[in-house]
Amino acid sequence: MSSSPEQTTEKEARIDMRDCSVLLAVDSFKGSASSSRVESLIEQGIRRIVPSARILKFPIADGGEGTVEAIVSARGGKLRRVCARGPLGETVEARYGIVEESTAIVEMAETSGITLIEQTPRNALSASSWGVGQIIIDAIEAGCKRILIGLGGSATSDGGMGMAKALGIEFLDSARRPVPCGLEGMRTLASIDVGGLDPRIAETEFTILTDVDNPLTGQNGALRVYGPQKGIEPSEIETLDGWMSSFAALLETTVGKRVQDRPGAGAAGGLGAALMAFCDARVERGIDYVLDAIELEDAMADVDLVITGEGRIDAQSANGKAPVGVAARAKRRGKPVIAIAGGRGDDIETVYAAGIDLVLPTVPRTMGLDEAIARVDIDVPAAGETAMRAFLLSLPQVGTSIPPRVR
Amino acid sequence: MSSSPEQTTEKEARIDMRDCSVLLAVDSFKGSASSSRVESLIEQGIRRIVPSARILKFPIADGGEGTVEAIVSARGGKLRRVCARGPLGETVEARYGIVEESTAIVEMAETSGITLIEQTPRNALSASSWGVGQIIIDAIEAGCKRILIGLGGSATSDGGMGMAKALGIEFLDSARRPVPCGLEGMRTLASIDVGGLDPRIAETEFTILTDVDNPLTGQNGALRVYGPQKGIEPSEIETLDGWMSSFAALLETTVGKRVQDRPGAGAAGGLGAALMAFCDARVERGIDYVLDAIELEDAMADVDLVITGEGRIDAQSANGKAPVGVAARAKRRGKPVIAIAGGRGDDIETVYAAGIDLVLPTVPRTMGLDEAIARVDIDVPAAGETAMRAFLLSLPQVGTSIPPRVR
Repeated sequence: MSSSPEQTTEKEARIDMRDCSVLLAVDSFKGSASSSRVESLIEQGIRRIVPSARILKFPIADGGEGTVEAIVSARGGKLRRVCARGPLGETVEARYGIVEESTAIVEMAETSGITLIEQTPRNALSASSWGVGQIIIDAIEAGCKRILIGLGGSATSDGGMGMAKALGIEFLDSARRPVPCGLEGMRTLASIDVGGLDPRIAETEFTILTDVDNPLTGQNGALRVYGPQKGIEPSEIETLDGWMSSFAALLETTVGKRVQDRPGAGAAGGLGAALMAFCDARVERGIDYVLDAIELEDAMADVDLVITGEGRIDAQSANGKAPVGVAARAKRRGKPVIAIAGGRGDDIETVYAAGIDLVLPTVPRTMGLDEAIARVDIDVPAAGETAMRAFLLSLPQVGTSIPPRVR
Repeated sequence: MSSSPEQTTEKEARIDMRDCSVLLAVDSFKGSASSSRVESLIEQGIRRIVPSARILKFPIADGGEGTVEAIVSARGGKLRRVCARGPLGETVEARYGIVEESTAIVEMAETSGITLIEQTPRNALSASSWGVGQIIIDAIEAGCKRILIGLGGSATSDGGMGMAKALGIEFLDSARRPVPCGLEGMRTLASIDVGGLDPRIAETEFTILTDVDNPLTGQNGALRVYGPQKGIEPSEIETLDGWMSSFAALLETTVGKRVQDRPGAGAAGGLGAALMAFCDARVERGIDYVLDAIELEDAMADVDLVITGEGRIDAQSANGKAPVGVAARAKRRGKPVIAIAGGRGDDIETVYAAGIDLVLPTVPRTMGLDEAIARVDIDVPAAGETAMRAFLLSLPQVGTSIPPRVR
């Protein structure tokens, strides 16, 4: 390959890696390891090659699991633990974060998450978002004026009725009796009484954090797209989506605005719609909010390499997932970006086009998913080492464990 | 990271990749794809990134499958096809190469390879190396003065008796009747009559190509280490190794020299020992012979990147396998080396220490071996693309499909 004179002299120049710096902003490997755990494992691998490297670790999340940790750890807020109702009414301990005194960061999955109950048809009908409302009240009583709610990983499909009940709203049948908790309450739902809504809600600013664009009902609605993974029988979806449509119509007449078609209305089993209707919540893409909130781009100014990643990187990853959000910011700073993924899809052109320079799967050889999950402590550090080796491949350098090449 | 002034100006300089050159010297992915097929697939991936790259492809082998192709394709010799006896006496068509008029390259597996028969206890006892001797005679009649024999992938454990018979040597029982073909002939073997040995053998130079160091008998002998994979019952090995020891003793008294302990005597079920005893063959490490014969190091002089690899890279790979042989030569030329492997072992420190800068497994996510083998056309090009992306990661460059980064 031909090269400019500067480049030729550079061949003799050696870059001192002892103080090279690497920024890690890696999403959790879902079902395997949290964002901060993955980053510590990658750090181990980097230090095999550059023991003295400066490594900046930013736990990140896209509005789902890890969102509270990401923001509180970057913004130096505090964590609050509260007891609240779980999806089936049992008591759970839930965490949420408060930053800058008056801003609360809530993960709906803490009280109403899919990992808290079994995914059976029965549970799918009963699961309630009540606990989310309790946390909202707790945050308001703690003095919060702004509440951000991450809607990832919900067990519920109750259209946010549980959350709204906890805020004082009543969901009644034709005899004006409260309907049961959960999606099944929609079957006999006849009216919604907002008279009891906590007045402080109106003075509070609500933001939904999600990467879900689905509307409340229909072909792309909450039930058709996410119902089955929550335990709903596919054969039931037609009927249940009918209930949800009646709920949507009642919601519209009750609050006097139509939210059911808005992107994100179908997030967390319709909790999005209820937050829009009763709390006037607006929607932000989770990953963008988180990356901006932790000021990731500014932190990239002086680093030599950015490493991102998630459990799986495929064509969908280009659509609002963490690694692409990280890469977009890194590219504005002109930084090389490596993505480490548990697994890689076949067609990732869009991921490369979004600014990721190199995708490195952690799986070292043929194996099953269980084995791969059990090997995260071995394979993720190895991938971190591989990433660093790739970064150094074309850099004549000193200060690493790699013997410099003769040129 | 700190850097010299040259390096800083280099940040603005862009290296023109349009004429960059990559040398491919990748061993076959055993059971999946030949060396030349793997290299064509890697080339596809490289061209996604640098369509105009100069790509030098050297099919390589370590003395096993692909050795003839590697040497004939690099040295411009000719292929000869002959009919010879297969392991069980059936007729097979076998290829061998002739380069520089008088040097023959033979793969024993062409006539006596493990892929030609089923691995049963019966076949393991009967399998004969006869066909190898027929090829030797054919090569001598074609005017060859030097014969190189790759001993990889044998089905036989006959101590080379079959090969020797084809050269005119007689293996007789106590009644001076010829013993049966194969390992089982050793059971009644009483004497060896070398009177009929073709006199031209003495005027021919023989070289064994192998990466096997095993002696003929004992704990590290041909039967204990390689017998089971050829179909021998583990319970039989003690007895059969006893036969082999008597054979070894007889061999020593017959030819008046002791070869059974030499490294490689146990290669190809003892064919190594017979070639040493009857043909005065010396042993060369297959990969070193092949890489020297194809003058790989000279070809590396002007390339920008060397890519090697094999089906699996693990701690054993540092011990005489193709990628490490390629890397040793690349390092003498100061070239970066990437190894592409179907799978990677956990501890590959020795491989990195041997001069490979980066190891990239082709497996993109958790899957079984059959699926991985079926996906070679998808995953190997993807690995070639990944290798090129890794090479370019730290090079400010133009002339590729990757948008140059702002610096």
